[in-house]
Amino acid sequence: MVLRKCQGVQRVQYRPMAALNTNLGVNFPRGFRSAGVYCGIKKPGLLDLALIVSETESSVAGMFTTNRACAAPVVWSKQAVAGRRARAIVANSGNANCLTGEQGMRDAQRMAELVAKRLECPPTQVVVASTGVIGVPLPMPAVESGIAQAFERLTDGDDRTTADAILTTDNASKRASLEIETPAGAVRIGAIAKGAGMIAPNMATMLAFITTDAAIDPADLQACLARVVNATFNCITVDGDTSTNDMVVALANGASGVQLAGDALQPFEQGLYQVCEYLAKRIVKDGEGASRIFEVRVSGAADADAARRIARTIAESQLVKTAVHGGDPNWGRIIAAAGRAGAPIDVSRARLHLQNTLVFENGRPTEYDERALVEAMQTDEVTIALTLSDGDGEAHFWSSDLTAEYVKINAHYRT
Amino acid sequence: MVLRKCQGVQRVQYRPMAALNTNLGVNFPRGFRSAGVYCGIKKPGLLDLALIVSETESSVAGMFTTNRACAAPVVWSKQAVAGRRARAIVANSGNANCLTGEQGMRDAQRMAELVAKRLECPPTQVVVASTGVIGVPLPMPAVESGIAQAFERLTDGDDRTTADAILTTDNASKRASLEIETPAGAVRIGAIAKGAGMIAPNMATMLAFITTDAAIDPADLQACLARVVNATFNCITVDGDTSTNDMVVALANGASGVQLAGDALQPFEQGLYQVCEYLAKRIVKDGEGASRIFEVRVSGAADADAARRIARTIAESQLVKTAVHGGDPNWGRIIAAAGRAGAPIDVSRARLHLQNTLVFENGRPTEYDERALVEAMQTDEVTIALTLSDGDGEAHFWSSDLTAEYVKINAHYRT
Repeated sequence: MVLRKCQGVQRVQYRPMAALNTNLGVNFPRGFRSAGVYCGIKKPGLLDLALIVSETESSVAGMFTTNRACAAPVVWSKQAVAGRRARAIVANSGNANCLTGEQGMRDAQRMAELVAKRLECPPTQVVVASTGVIGVPLPMPAVESGIAQAFERLTDGDDRTTADAILTTDNASKRASLEIETPAGAVRIGAIAKGAGMIAPNMATMLAFITTDAAIDPADLQACLARVVNATFNCITVDGDTSTNDMVVALANGASGVQLAGDALQPFEQGLYQVCEYLAKRIVKDGEGASRIFEVRVSGAADADAARRIARTIAESQLVKTAVHGGDPNWGRIIAAAGRAGAPIDVSRARLHLQNTLVFENGRPTEYDERALVEAMQTDEVTIALTLSDGDGEAHFWSSDLTAEYVKINAHYRT
Repeated sequence: MVLRKCQGVQRVQYRPMAALNTNLGVNFPRGFRSAGVYCGIKKPGLLDLALIVSETESSVAGMFTTNRACAAPVVWSKQAVAGRRARAIVANSGNANCLTGEQGMRDAQRMAELVAKRLECPPTQVVVASTGVIGVPLPMPAVESGIAQAFERLTDGDDRTTADAILTTDNASKRASLEIETPAGAVRIGAIAKGAGMIAPNMATMLAFITTDAAIDPADLQACLARVVNATFNCITVDGDTSTNDMVVALANGASGVQLAGDALQPFEQGLYQVCEYLAKRIVKDGEGASRIFEVRVSGAADADAARRIARTIAESQLVKTAVHGGDPNWGRIIAAAGRAGAPIDVSRARLHLQNTLVFENGRPTEYDERALVEAMQTDEVTIALTLSDGDGEAHFWSSDLTAEYVKINAHYRT
C-alpha cells in the first residue's frame, strides 16, 4: 500500500495538544458505539466486520484513494460523504470488493442498506469500506449475518474488537484518542486505522475512521481533514503502491454540545493532527517486513511542490530504503534521489544531515565521523534532513526500510 | 540504478536485421581500436580504465542522465558531444567522480586533455565517463598512468578487456555487434555496456559506448540514437534509481566509406536498435539480485505518454516485482499499479494477459487455469500485456524482479 501525495508545506504548524490515549479509539468521543465481529470472510476466529454508529446524524468528511481502479465501496462512500451527513461506518476485512464488476457495486450498496434499515436512516448516510483480497465477490450471506451480530454487540466501552476487525496483515491494532480544550469547551477525538499488509492475493489498504463529539459544519470538517491527511497519511510510504481501497473518514456528531467554527477550529485541527500523525507513523512502523522507519525532511526547496517531490523520491528510493535497513549513512544515494526527483535543485548549495550530523555541503561530503554516524543510525527512527537554498518549500515524508522479509512476504504467499 | 523515461511509442517498428555477435563490441567496426587496463582505482587485478579511439575524427552523439546531481564527466561530455566531432572515449570504473565539487570538473577535463595530447586533437573531442564510488576524488596519478598504459595496448582485435574495464558489480561483460546491409553498402555497428551495480558506497551507472564505421552526419546520428535509446535503454528499470553518471555515446567514423543519409539511415537505425535492445535486456537480466526479467507491454492507452506512465508504473511496482519473483500471477497488483499511474484509464474496458493467458477483462478476473499459469510463469522472461481501449498509445518496459538478494546487496555492504 500506501503511497500518496504529500501536498507539500502544511501552512499550519502542528504541535502536540494533549496526552494521547492509544488504548481507546472511536469510542472515546461521546455518542458513538462500535463493535467488531467474526462473520466468516476470514479464517475462523479472525474478526472481519466492524461497525461504528453515531447516536445522532453527524457531519461527515472523507479522503479517498486516487487510484483509478478504485473499489466499489470507495465509489459508494464518496457519494455518501458528498451528502455531508452520516450515521454509521461499516467495514469488512478479508475481501476488498475491488475489481468485482457490477456485482461489487450492488454488494457495497447492500451493506449500506442493511445498516441503514436498522438505524432507520437513508442508505446514503452509511459509509462502506472493504479491505483484503481483490477480484473475489463478497460473501454476502456472511456479511449480512456479520452486520446483524455487530448491532447486537455495539458498545460504548472498549473498542479493541472494532480496531481489530479492520486489520489484515497488520501486526498490531491501531487506536488513538485525546481530549482537547477549545475556547468553546472540551471535545474528544478518537480514531482507528489499519495499514500495510498485502498478502493473499491482494493489496494493502490504508483505512482510518475518526470520530469526534464536536459539532462541526461538514465543510469545515472536510477542510480540516484534508489538511491533516495531507500532512500525515498522505506523507507515508511503505512501497509506493497506492491501494485501490484507501479511505479516511471522519464523523462529527456534536454530542459534546461544543460547536466549533472559525478560530475555535484550530485546536481541533491540532488534536486531529496529533491523532493522525500517531496512526500514520504506526502504519509505517507496522509496514510489511519493516525493521525501522525514517523521516525525510526537506526545506528550502523551490516551492512546496518541489519539496514534496524531493521528499517523496528520497522516501521511496529502494537504494535509500535498503541503506536505512543496513544502518548505512549512504548520503550519495540520498543526493542522487533528490537529483532525479524532477524538481529544480541546486546540489552545490544543498546541505544534508543524517541523524543531525552534517554529511554533505558545498557539493561534496564533509569530514564527519563515519563510525559515530553508523552507530547513531542503529535506531528505530532515522532522520534525513535536506536543506536547500532554492526557495521556501517544505515537506516531510515517513517511510519504512526495505528488508528481505518484505520480499519474502510479497513473493511467496502461495509457495 | 536505471530508471529512465521510456518516451512512449516508437513510431519506427524495429525488427532484427542480422545475426548479433555478442563476442565482439566496439572493435568490430573498421577504424576503431580500444583497450582496457588496470591502473589502481579498483582492487588489484580488476580492470578499471577503458579507452576507445577512432583513427579519424568521428561524428558523435550522446544521451545523458537527467539527474540534476549529475557527475563531472557528464557535464564535460555533454559539452564534447555538443561539438559534434570526437576522436575518443575514455572511461574509468571504481570511482564516479560525482559530488566531488570543483576538483571533479578539473579532473574530468584533465582526463580529456591527457587523451587529446596523445591524439593531437582538441580536448573537447574526447568524451569522458566515470562509474563507481560517489563523493571521492579521482586518484589522478593512477588515471594518468592508466591512460598511458591504455595507449600502449590499443588493439583492433578482441575487445573483452575494454568491455570489462567499465564494469562495476556486473556479473558479466556486455558486448554486441553486427554488420548490416544498406542501399549504400554494408556498415558495422558495435557496442559495449555496463549496468546495474550499486555496492560499495555508490550508485549504479548505466554506460554504453557505440561505434560504427558508417559515415553519418552528427545531427542524423543524434536523432537515430535518441529514438533508439528511448525505446531501449530508457525503457529499463532495475530499481527506479536514475544514476548520476549515465550516458550512452555513439561515434561514427565513416571508415566503411558508406555515407548514410535520408532513407538509407533506416537500416542503420534498425541495426542500432538490435544492438541496444540486446544490451538493455542484458543490463536488466544482470540487475542486482535479479532472478528473472519481465516485459510490460501497454497498448490502447489514451496517448503515448499515458502508455509510458502506465508501463513504467507497473514495471517499477515493488508488489509486481515481488510477485514476478514468486512466479505469482497476481493480476490485481498489476491493475492496481496501472490505476495509480496518474494516466487516464478505463479499467472496465482493460484486458490483461500474463504469459499470453487472459486473466482480466470486463472489470473482473476471467476463469483461467491458475495452476497452468503459475507453471507458465516459472520462466526467465515473463510477459505482462495490458490492452486498453482508451486510445492508440503504446509503450513497453523491461524490468527485473525484486529479490531478497537485492536487499542483501544494497543494505549490507559495510557490515
